[in-house]
Amino acid sequence: MAKDAHFLGIDLGGTNIQAGIYKAEKKIDRKNLVVRDGTKTKAEGGSEAVLERIEKLCLKLIEKAGLKPGDIAGLGIGAPGAIDIDKGMVLRAPNLGWDDFPLCKKLGERLPFKVTVDNDVNVGAWGEYMAGAGRGHRDLMAIFVGTGVGAGLVIHGKLYHGVRFTAGEIGHTVVQGNGLLGRRTVEDLASRTSMVRRLVRLIESYHKSSVPKMVDGDLSKVRSKILAQAQQEGDALTLQIIADAADYIGIAIANAVTLMSLPCVVVGGGATEALGEDWMKQVREAFKKNVFPSELKDTKIVASELEDDAGVIGAALLAVERLG
Amino acid sequence: MAKDAHFLGIDLGGTNIQAGIYKAEKKIDRKNLVVRDGTKTKAEGGSEAVLERIEKLCLKLIEKAGLKPGDIAGLGIGAPGAIDIDKGMVLRAPNLGWDDFPLCKKLGERLPFKVTVDNDVNVGAWGEYMAGAGRGHRDLMAIFVGTGVGAGLVIHGKLYHGVRFTAGEIGHTVVQGNGLLGRRTVEDLASRTSMVRRLVRLIESYHKSSVPKMVDGDLSKVRSKILAQAQQEGDALTLQIIADAADYIGIAIANAVTLMSLPCVVVGGGATEALGEDWMKQVREAFKKNVFPSELKDTKIVASELEDDAGVIGAALLAVERLG
Repeated sequence: MAKDAHFLGIDLGGTNIQAGIYKAEKKIDRKNLVVRDGTKTKAEGGSEAVLERIEKLCLKLIEKAGLKPGDIAGLGIGAPGAIDIDKGMVLRAPNLGWDDFPLCKKLGERLPFKVTVDNDVNVGAWGEYMAGAGRGHRDLMAIFVGTGVGAGLVIHGKLYHGVRFTAGEIGHTVVQGNGLLGRRTVEDLASRTSMVRRLVRLIESYHKSSVPKMVDGDLSKVRSKILAQAQQEGDALTLQIIADAADYIGIAIANAVTLMSLPCVVVGGGATEALGEDWMKQVREAFKKNVFPSELKDTKIVASELEDDAGVIGAALLAVERLG
Repeated sequence: MAKDAHFLGIDLGGTNIQAGIYKAEKKIDRKNLVVRDGTKTKAEGGSEAVLERIEKLCLKLIEKAGLKPGDIAGLGIGAPGAIDIDKGMVLRAPNLGWDDFPLCKKLGERLPFKVTVDNDVNVGAWGEYMAGAGRGHRDLMAIFVGTGVGAGLVIHGKLYHGVRFTAGEIGHTVVQGNGLLGRRTVEDLASRTSMVRRLVRLIESYHKSSVPKMVDGDLSKVRSKILAQAQQEGDALTLQIIADAADYIGIAIANAVTLMSLPCVVVGGGATEALGEDWMKQVREAFKKNVFPSELKDTKIVASELEDDAGVIGAALLAVERLG
């Protein structure tokens, strides 16, 4: 790898595109992210329009960093959905409306760099593994709790994809096989969406809570930040819902660690960031109650360090790994 | 590897020791298991007595095969419990009463072969991967349903052990997070032990069943074979219990395949062998209902081919792999 090579990292989401330029040095450090910017995805405008927005964002960042396109050694991009990393294809991305879309080829036609792509959650996991809370472990899972619940797996120092490139779909594992309300997955019970849905339903059936006051009676405004505010104010209903969700996230992590004997799990995502260390403590407690064998209680369950930068840094570092 | 090299494979259990000699040829085939024999473990006699029984069994097999000890290129052994495969140590084997026991070194002092050890379930999984129902897949899980429920994982063509050498403990994953009877693991709900316990409890609380007649009223005699007989005779209570257990095994498999995007799962163990293809159909159905994304419904869920020989053949083939 050339000395001081620069790599572009892009985190392509259904709503926003985030991007940055990472200066590759021997010592991997999030501080090497030299510039950072973002824009809206506007996926409804079609794939060519999205590609154009990515192209413009890249050129803007290169200028901002005082570089020329020729100084960029490669581009890594994380995209939502199932990705065939060998072919550089987005197989299915419902959030973008893309099927069998040759993302690497298409970007390569617009920009003079080699391009590599992976799933956005995997890219976040790679960021935490290389430059965040997972440093120093050869195997780990990074689980992100937000609108949904997803995970990325690093095994023997490499991202693990599985036969259909869908590994890490922990949100869709069943943790309530036969409950009063039927079968439930981790996402049904512990995503931010499910926490909010449960809170709203209970408030609407006259449970006492300080949340309605916080949103001036408009319960459609309840998001992670409101959950966090109610948590800080000690709203009993919210605390119970958060505790129940933490319990199921702890079970999901315990199940994965029991199956794969993992030394480290990084926990991130919007809900985790908002709910902070109190939430992490509850997740850890539930993990320890449910993992097997007891030696695995030593497994590190740590909060994401890179937070919003995990995707951008992970994508750039994946480009370093694969294209550097 | 020498032409026609022979390898010893040993499946060391809490009750029985099974062993055989495998002739290593380019084409891997269970028919290359040229001799096969077994003896009781008698673990209560202490580790030296167990080692002596293994030594005698090996020498007997070598003679039976018309070979000399010098013809044996290596010995593979599967032992129950957590194994440090790098050090050749049995870390904990409750069934044998062993802790931090240097099995490879101890056997190497008695027998003139190189020795390699792994967990008994992993060894069974390796047998199915190399010579059984899992051939042709680079990644797989083999799950064994009997007294307990355990699994072995092959990832990228290698056994996967994890940080504590305990990977595959799927029986201890939680699939009923908050049921009427509290939290339940796969083993609580779907092992042969739990099926029998539930059947006995229901019969004792006056549910109708033809099982008491089959065991002359002695319900302590209910084992896999009785379950299978009641299944064949269409005993409604037994059929319900088997179906519920199959449902939870299907969920457990779906959870693993969803997390790891696996192309193949081999299902074996005493209960699976006894309950046969009807059971496998129910397991497959439950798997398909619960796996995500839907593309993974194509994952092969297949019955063990090697059955009782999986451990012996797996151990011998592990010796071929590591010592050949």
